[in-house]
Amino acid sequence: CREAVRPAPAAAPPRPRRGEARHAEGFRAAGLWRGIKQPHRPDLGLLIGDDAFPATALFTRSKMVGACVTLSRENLARSGGLVRAILVNSGNANCATGAAGLEDGRMIGAAMAELIGCPPEQVLFLNTGVIGQRLPVEPILAKLDALHSQARQGGLDDFSSAILTTDTRPKVAIDGEQFTGIAKGSGMIHPDMATMLAFAMTDAAHTDLGAALDQATDRTFHRLTVDGDTSPNDAVILWSSGRRDADGDFDRRLEGVCRDLCRQIAADGEGATKLVTIRVSGATSEHQAATIGRTIATSMLTKTAIAGRDPNWGRIVAAAARTSGPVDVSKFRLAIGGAVVFDSGQPHPENEPAAHQHMLTSDEVDIDLVIGEDPHAAECWTCDLTADYVKINADYRT
Amino acid sequence: CREAVRPAPAAAPPRPRRGEARHAEGFRAAGLWRGIKQPHRPDLGLLIGDDAFPATALFTRSKMVGACVTLSRENLARSGGLVRAILVNSGNANCATGAAGLEDGRMIGAAMAELIGCPPEQVLFLNTGVIGQRLPVEPILAKLDALHSQARQGGLDDFSSAILTTDTRPKVAIDGEQFTGIAKGSGMIHPDMATMLAFAMTDAAHTDLGAALDQATDRTFHRLTVDGDTSPNDAVILWSSGRRDADGDFDRRLEGVCRDLCRQIAADGEGATKLVTIRVSGATSEHQAATIGRTIATSMLTKTAIAGRDPNWGRIVAAAARTSGPVDVSKFRLAIGGAVVFDSGQPHPENEPAAHQHMLTSDEVDIDLVIGEDPHAAECWTCDLTADYVKINADYRT
Repeated sequence: CREAVRPAPAAAPPRPRRGEARHAEGFRAAGLWRGIKQPHRPDLGLLIGDDAFPATALFTRSKMVGACVTLSRENLARSGGLVRAILVNSGNANCATGAAGLEDGRMIGAAMAELIGCPPEQVLFLNTGVIGQRLPVEPILAKLDALHSQARQGGLDDFSSAILTTDTRPKVAIDGEQFTGIAKGSGMIHPDMATMLAFAMTDAAHTDLGAALDQATDRTFHRLTVDGDTSPNDAVILWSSGRRDADGDFDRRLEGVCRDLCRQIAADGEGATKLVTIRVSGATSEHQAATIGRTIATSMLTKTAIAGRDPNWGRIVAAAARTSGPVDVSKFRLAIGGAVVFDSGQPHPENEPAAHQHMLTSDEVDIDLVIGEDPHAAECWTCDLTADYVKINADYRT
Repeated sequence: CREAVRPAPAAAPPRPRRGEARHAEGFRAAGLWRGIKQPHRPDLGLLIGDDAFPATALFTRSKMVGACVTLSRENLARSGGLVRAILVNSGNANCATGAAGLEDGRMIGAAMAELIGCPPEQVLFLNTGVIGQRLPVEPILAKLDALHSQARQGGLDDFSSAILTTDTRPKVAIDGEQFTGIAKGSGMIHPDMATMLAFAMTDAAHTDLGAALDQATDRTFHRLTVDGDTSPNDAVILWSSGRRDADGDFDRRLEGVCRDLCRQIAADGEGATKLVTIRVSGATSEHQAATIGRTIATSMLTKTAIAGRDPNWGRIVAAAARTSGPVDVSKFRLAIGGAVVFDSGQPHPENEPAAHQHMLTSDEVDIDLVIGEDPHAAECWTCDLTADYVKINADYRT
């Protein structure tokens, strides 16, 4: 997503640096077990601002939305974008639950607001998990007080665990200066274990949070795929305490935190064994580069080849070649882990052993496709497609 | 693809009726083993007309095309659409082989034409198989004479076997009156074992074969997916001996033969255990219905759920809801095997056991989605996504 003639070399794999670097100031967090998820894992999380702070949100593009998307849009409109707290439960998506589901969500959000002592529209309540089932309202209500009193500055570990579903690990990204990012998501969609959720908290002020989030999301979350599906509950929220002036680097830092979260999500994709970074460069526009990158990232044949550690350039080139819009395959140069396996219309089998070795030994597979001489580039992220993905998703409800 | 307020009930599974019904007249066929494929399976096939007959072809939409696509387009332009013979080899796609690959294809086609005694542009030579490797020219040339002399009216069985790659069985569709259809294809694309090929031969005359094939393909092959990828070598060819006048039913019969072949290809998809027919109706246009059907057909979560025999309405509705363009999920009615599992925004768990039973016991899974009150409908075909698909495609070159 950086514009460059040639993409930059791969960054070191992102690591959550919890406890080391400073978090964005002005926020507290908590997470505890309410009993929605089995076995005993935390399933109720709270982020709370010291005051009502400006926030902006992007929700799923699907026409099927969970109750929390409808209610959050309403609340943000009513509060003028001021958010005091974000409550999240995992294990139940409160989706396809009709008017009753909306009422459940509204009631729990209002109860949280009453405990905090803020207007109900300043509390967002997000859900992720099984769809088509009513929320267990009473058990959640019964835990809100404990959750509220547990909230503390060091509570992000508890929160980041409480929001997980099929994820195998929490996802936290810290820009030591200004931003704290937290996400969950293991497939792009799991209507039964639904949703990618991401939160970026910052103490830096910004005059147009919405524009900043649009741009960062366009270059990060919209370039991430695990299985090509879209969830009814997806939400990305940017929330600023405004405790300090922005240092002019807000957009770059936000994008960095979002990218870090994306890479963690791809690396933890269902059944995944490899994080795959696809860089397309030499494009006539960033849009063209991203479109081609996304097509490669969703190609089942590319993803299964990566699962087999097979430097199968034919599948990658063919995926790029079926993208809409003009491309000239005879100008392509494709490298896997830096080994050029296809150049100017010709395969280079002599470099396949090096590419294969990269796929075998590295946690990250780097695919670098140059499509021409133009100056635009984009990065996308995905994971390999393994028999475990099929197993997880075929056997899920049986 | 038939326009109707409600889709028609599922047809009986198509069966090749080789040897029973009459084939289209004016064509002979042959197939033999040349040694491209291992183990000993036929890998060189020939269709030959009693004379040069009019033909029309649709090729892959990919910008990466095999030499055979370039050469076939040239030949058809030069011959004014007259085709005397179609030669096919399986096991090698002659793709990404550059100028040398074009020359190989041209030489073999010309040699075949010389044996037959026709202009070289009247011979189409199609390839399917591994890409990035040169054709074994001499061994193919050495077999052309034997292939030519073996061609006979009853040779379609040999031909339909000779063109297979990862397919587990030949695909023949006969409309007892006018049409003979033959296809190969087990994934929509396999750049390493490339290509869907389909041939429809008819003795019925038609004034605009191109328009007839466009329409039939739009309603059949363009609504078929195994893995969502597109091959560099895809070709669908309609070829008419014109031995009899069309009875006014040409388009319907052609579409029927193409549909039959599509269903056979989906049923034989790599790793597939179920043929899946998706009918979308109540749409504002056939295009809308087909777009939604194709989105469901390519949803990995839908396809893995079918592999698990899980009547997972949430994944199907969510796939439809992420299709571009307006839809109203609260008007959806979804049935699996006739059991309504989602209606007007509400799940119907009481019907899931019947849907599950259908998925367990039937070779075909019928998904029937009504999206509104409008009169348009479309059918699409796919297969389930199993761990075997991943295994076949992850382990292919290792």
